[in-house]
Amino acid sequence: MNYPSKLIENAVNEISKLPGIGKKSALRLALYLLKQDKEQTTSLVRALVALREETSYCKLCHNLSDSELCLICSSHRRDRSIICVVTDTRDVMAIENTAQYNGLYHVLGGVISPMEGIGPSELTIDSLVERVYTTDEEHPVREIILALSPTMEGDTTAFYIQKKLKESGVKISTIARGIPVGGDLEYADEVTLGRSIVGRLSYE
Amino acid sequence: MNYPSKLIENAVNEISKLPGIGKKSALRLALYLLKQDKEQTTSLVRALVALREETSYCKLCHNLSDSELCLICSSHRRDRSIICVVTDTRDVMAIENTAQYNGLYHVLGGVISPMEGIGPSELTIDSLVERVYTTDEEHPVREIILALSPTMEGDTTAFYIQKKLKESGVKISTIARGIPVGGDLEYADEVTLGRSIVGRLSYE
Repeated sequence: MNYPSKLIENAVNEISKLPGIGKKSALRLALYLLKQDKEQTTSLVRALVALREETSYCKLCHNLSDSELCLICSSHRRDRSIICVVTDTRDVMAIENTAQYNGLYHVLGGVISPMEGIGPSELTIDSLVERVYTTDEEHPVREIILALSPTMEGDTTAFYIQKKLKESGVKISTIARGIPVGGDLEYADEVTLGRSIVGRLSYE
Repeated sequence: MNYPSKLIENAVNEISKLPGIGKKSALRLALYLLKQDKEQTTSLVRALVALREETSYCKLCHNLSDSELCLICSSHRRDRSIICVVTDTRDVMAIENTAQYNGLYHVLGGVISPMEGIGPSELTIDSLVERVYTTDEEHPVREIILALSPTMEGDTTAFYIQKKLKESGVKISTIARGIPVGGDLEYADEVTLGRSIVGRLSYE
């Protein structure tokens, strides 16, 4: 495409690097911003910069957090003996929405995917293992729930974690497959997702 | 939704103000940016700021332009006696892609739409009328091609411009309706769009 201005060409190229946005959509978004008040672009830009520069992660569960310990990890009302292992922040939000779970989380930051070059060391699996083996006398970890998407990568990751935690003696379960196989966890409806947590299956 | 961090909540709110992007897509985009190098966010932000702060418009045709006169208006190879009136920059790009048109353009910046509160004074119609009536002895305007989308708003705008230019004696034509009625000009394929320019119909 021949753009009438280098500025718009540059903006379109940058916007279309985002997943699911092609050149035509990017051009539409760029022209939309041009038509709105400068304010809107300014606040969008400010939010993106703040997100990228200032976001920190909870040192325990690795979820996004504004403080060193996230609100869930620092809450006294949560059951500290159960840890629910999820892929990313969206899964925490989805499970929290069901109001069926009162334990802690562990955010892996992805799943093992050789195709995308993501191995176990790119994820927070070591930190999970440490959490399980570092015995806290008051609140020992009794159970790990693996709440990963039922895809090949999710299953591989679940299998890897299971092997790593075998000797800990901690019970390992997986959420019930009420979710259609091959589907994405984050798009499941709340009832199905809530039921899949209540009806979780223990590995042997 | 309960976001784990104010920063991500703010970013999601800002991103989802863009047309066609809901909260879930916005969250996906925000988490995507968090996973990439800071570089990517920086260059996206820089491109958006430059677009919004530095973009200027051609003083003749009102298309986006890096200079006072755009490349088309300042070219000596274009036929200065024909002006093609379009809604926005995307339409100029689409028509240029057909390689079937060698005249100049006039970018309205929208179409008359009472529903969205856009009247003739929000558009560059006055400037178009001035272009037609200000006689340039060397290159008098012979023809105006109205290349607006065949929607109610497009037709209203075409009718309004026609009335304004009636006394100028300049020939006014509209692109042939090879494009499905109700469709968007920018998504037409190049052959259809090119043919609609060649086979344009004269009013009366």
